[in-house]
Amino acid sequence: MKITPTRARELARHLGGEIVGDADTMITGIAPIEQAGSGDLSFIAQARFLDQLDQTAAAAVLVAANFTLTPGRRPALIRVANPYFAFIEIIKKYLPNPQSAPGIDPSAHVSPHARLGEGVTIGPHATIEAGCEIGAAVQIGAGCYLGRGAKIGSGSTLFPHVCIAHEVIIGRNVIVQFGSVIGSDGFGYVKHEGRHHKIPHLGTVVIEDEVEIGANCTIDRGTFGETRIQRGAKLDNLIHLAHNVTVGENTVIAAQTGVSGSTKIGRDVTIAGQVGFVGHIDIGDHTMFGAQAGVTKSIPANTVVSGYPARDHAQARREEAAIRRLPELLKRVKALERLLAADGKLQLSEDSPKEEMAG
Amino acid sequence: MKITPTRARELARHLGGEIVGDADTMITGIAPIEQAGSGDLSFIAQARFLDQLDQTAAAAVLVAANFTLTPGRRPALIRVANPYFAFIEIIKKYLPNPQSAPGIDPSAHVSPHARLGEGVTIGPHATIEAGCEIGAAVQIGAGCYLGRGAKIGSGSTLFPHVCIAHEVIIGRNVIVQFGSVIGSDGFGYVKHEGRHHKIPHLGTVVIEDEVEIGANCTIDRGTFGETRIQRGAKLDNLIHLAHNVTVGENTVIAAQTGVSGSTKIGRDVTIAGQVGFVGHIDIGDHTMFGAQAGVTKSIPANTVVSGYPARDHAQARREEAAIRRLPELLKRVKALERLLAADGKLQLSEDSPKEEMAG
Amino acid sequence: MKITPTRARELARHLGGEIVGDADTMITGIAPIEQAGSGDLSFIAQARFLDQLDQTAAAAVLVAANFTLTPGRRPALIRVANPYFAFIEIIKKYLPNPQSAPGIDPSAHVSPHARLGEGVTIGPHATIEAGCEIGAAVQIGAGCYLGRGAKIGSGSTLFPHVCIAHEVIIGRNVIVQFGSVIGSDGFGYVKHEGRHHKIPHLGTVVIEDEVEIGANCTIDRGTFGETRIQRGAKLDNLIHLAHNVTVGENTVIAAQTGVSGSTKIGRDVTIAGQVGFVGHIDIGDHTMFGAQAGVTKSIPANTVVSGYPARDHAQARREEAAIRRLPELLKRVKALERLLAADGKLQLSEDSPKEEMAG
Repeated sequence: MKITPTRARELARHLGGEIVGDADTMITGIAPIEQAGSGDLSFIAQARFLDQLDQTAAAAVLVAANFTLTPGRRPALIRVANPYFAFIEIIKKYLPNPQSAPGIDPSAHVSPHARLGEGVTIGPHATIEAGCEIGAAVQIGAGCYLGRGAKIGSGSTLFPHVCIAHEVIIGRNVIVQFGSVIGSDGFGYVKHEGRHHKIPHLGTVVIEDEVEIGANCTIDRGTFGETRIQRGAKLDNLIHLAHNVTVGENTVIAAQTGVSGSTKIGRDVTIAGQVGFVGHIDIGDHTMFGAQAGVTKSIPANTVVSGYPARDHAQARREEAAIRRLPELLKRVKALERLLAADGKLQLSEDSPKEEMAG
Repeated sequence: MKITPTRARELARHLGGEIVGDADTMITGIAPIEQAGSGDLSFIAQARFLDQLDQTAAAAVLVAANFTLTPGRRPALIRVANPYFAFIEIIKKYLPNPQSAPGIDPSAHVSPHARLGEGVTIGPHATIEAGCEIGAAVQIGAGCYLGRGAKIGSGSTLFPHVCIAHEVIIGRNVIVQFGSVIGSDGFGYVKHEGRHHKIPHLGTVVIEDEVEIGANCTIDRGTFGETRIQRGAKLDNLIHLAHNVTVGENTVIAAQTGVSGSTKIGRDVTIAGQVGFVGHIDIGDHTMFGAQAGVTKSIPANTVVSGYPARDHAQARREEAAIRRLPELLKRVKALERLLAADGKLQLSEDSPKEEMAG
Repeated sequence: MKITPTRARELARHLGGEIVGDADTMITGIAPIEQAGSGDLSFIAQARFLDQLDQTAAAAVLVAANFTLTPGRRPALIRVANPYFAFIEIIKKYLPNPQSAPGIDPSAHVSPHARLGEGVTIGPHATIEAGCEIGAAVQIGAGCYLGRGAKIGSGSTLFPHVCIAHEVIIGRNVIVQFGSVIGSDGFGYVKHEGRHHKIPHLGTVVIEDEVEIGANCTIDRGTFGETRIQRGAKLDNLIHLAHNVTVGENTVIAAQTGVSGSTKIGRDVTIAGQVGFVGHIDIGDHTMFGAQAGVTKSIPANTVVSGYPARDHAQARREEAAIRRLPELLKRVKALERLLAADGKLQLSEDSPKEEMAG
């Protein structure tokens, strides 16, 4: 992709990096290392990929300051603390970003009782109800809905078709992607005379600064109190958070995971896709969850779990390996029983199970 | 939360409850017991939480008529049949509910060939196609879409961004939350000459009275005939029901569960989150399904199942406990085999498996 | 359902089929065989259902040319290569399809910098951004969003509320159902100084001809390069495809399945519901995946797998059957150990596990 043409020296200066090779090389685009062509800047994030330097056509490559480089013909290098992070910094500064000018599309429905900061963009067919407070430079995509009293912090972006229900509070520099719903009513009923009666959901949702939420997620509001996603947490697509859930700082949750009511997830937790958590449990900081794990109880900090029910990951793998051998184990035990029966030491009971296995 | 200030006596009268203590206490708000402050009404639903009466600052507490109360200083009590249900009754009557006045937002697209009952509310950017029939006091949120010939019974509420496809029939007092889709085409193709050809979906969806559907669900229409959700059933978020599924009365389904085509789920069934049902099976009344269960065959009434493939829950738990012991069992059988081999009674075969376990 | 009244002879001619019985029978409707009444055309797709010919009230039935028919009183038969496919052909030609006339609803927001083909329909409240190219006879439902530079091939249909993000390319005769999102940003962050920094997603999504995507799906764009769904693939509802995934030709994916980043799925693959795939793996052509399978590694072509972790389906079934017998196996091994201990040959260790099973 084309960027504003810039010399390698200037990019290194912007990044606070050290240049090795031709500092005057003109950089005109960016690309991943295996696709980079003449004029492109690329990056190598891990030392084991350094041999790609010998094949790439890139004009310059971002590498880590602590990589050990062997001599050879190669593109200009820019040594930085974190090459991928530096690559993102270059994209943010030098890649043209054709954004629409701020302004409110005439087809948007904006209540006269909403308060809008400077430089707000509101797309076609959006609805902003009374009492909303929208911070500076917020971008609200086409067809978004903001219920009465919703608050959006400055610098946040709602992609098209996002629903923010009444009174929900969104922090600064938050991103919510297409079609996600923040503040739906939680799933709670009281059974009375054989019928389910809806529990009013009087709480709300608080999304702290720098959080990102993917597409078509559903984040329910608290029954009382709040559902809260703490600073810097990142959620993928089609995730469900029930009422009164807490997600800790910098926690990362992959697609299609669901968290039941009132469960508290700690900080810096890593959750793979399609994981399920029962309600009312505590998930410790720095825990990790394998894909499709079914988490049925609280998990202490710094633990890696997987499987259903979720348990220590190394133990789960040992059990899975043992299950692979289970059909053969049944035969081995049968052989032992026959041997001892032949000795007259064991009576094979009538109801001793037959080899009735499927498959 | 503030309610219309009302004396405890009046609340008790509204509920048909019996007051114990100061009937003149003025109630000005409602809160859960652990958060209740001066002037608040709260409730205790289970006798084992009665000791919270000694600590709460609540002015009055709803308790069950059949609780045994010990003497002590405490707030006013209102004895009722079902404290949580009574609490909801108070919220419904005394909590201010700032609803927009009925009316059709001028930005809504309403076909002149649609029929609207009295007191209908239609939000901004909604679309109501020809032939729709919308009952009295129905609330249709911003950006909702109602296809041609859709029918919505009186008192029902569609949250913003709901899609009701053509000819779908929604009963009375139904709630559909943000972004749910009722009446998408089912997933069916005929393979012909190596390609999949779409089967037209000529059926519809019928949602009976008092049903609630959460956010971002997808309910497919019947291929022929109907997909039907019976009276009082409650669905959480991100649920998928395929073509021609039936969900019985008062059945409760938690988030991210999926039901394949033509499966019939009985009444008063309880289904936890992320459960999957294959197609063309019958699920008996009063069954219960553990989270992430994979249901591969019909299940008789009054059964509790879990796991994959779903089986009797007690049996599943015994098996899971046994799996925990499986790596150690492999060692024990190995020890028995060695013992008998040392006796000359067993020849350890060449291909006897090695300890090759992972982890 | 009523069709344009047509004689059986004419239907047979349209299908290139051979008629057996009264070619003058007037056909006035279509219905599945068990519901068909007087005047209806129906079909039988499998020979084992041929005895339904004796009970049906249908006026004519489509049957396969290779079925062996026994003599008897019966409706007119039309022999064709593929009865269900022929039935669809009749529906497509003879069932009235009340479509709105082509045209752009005045409430739609269409950029003057978009290019529209002939016969395009754009529903109320849709948004078409600058640079979009929309082919002939494309139907865009109410409230759809097309970001800048999106391209839609001729004959495609977007149901209401679909989001097509900027630069996404949709082929010809593609169907995208309600609420699906094509081109959301992928889930990728670089960790730097303890915080997650969003990786810009500069790639796109390409949907080839004849693909169908169900409701409320999320298809992420490539980080670089593309996410691609190849010709004729069919996706059900609530499916998640991450960045840079490829889905091969004619592959079929059931609801709530998720595919992680950069995984390549081959052609003619069949994937049941709620399956999960980890990232960066290769799935061979003509593979099949059981419901809820958790796929943790590449799978060779022509394989059937199931379970978690996904493995050969026959092996998985043998293991599941063996697990059913595991609690009893523990008892049998215990009995063997006791027997040998009684012989003085085995010392039962102190820490020999007790019968501590749950349930």
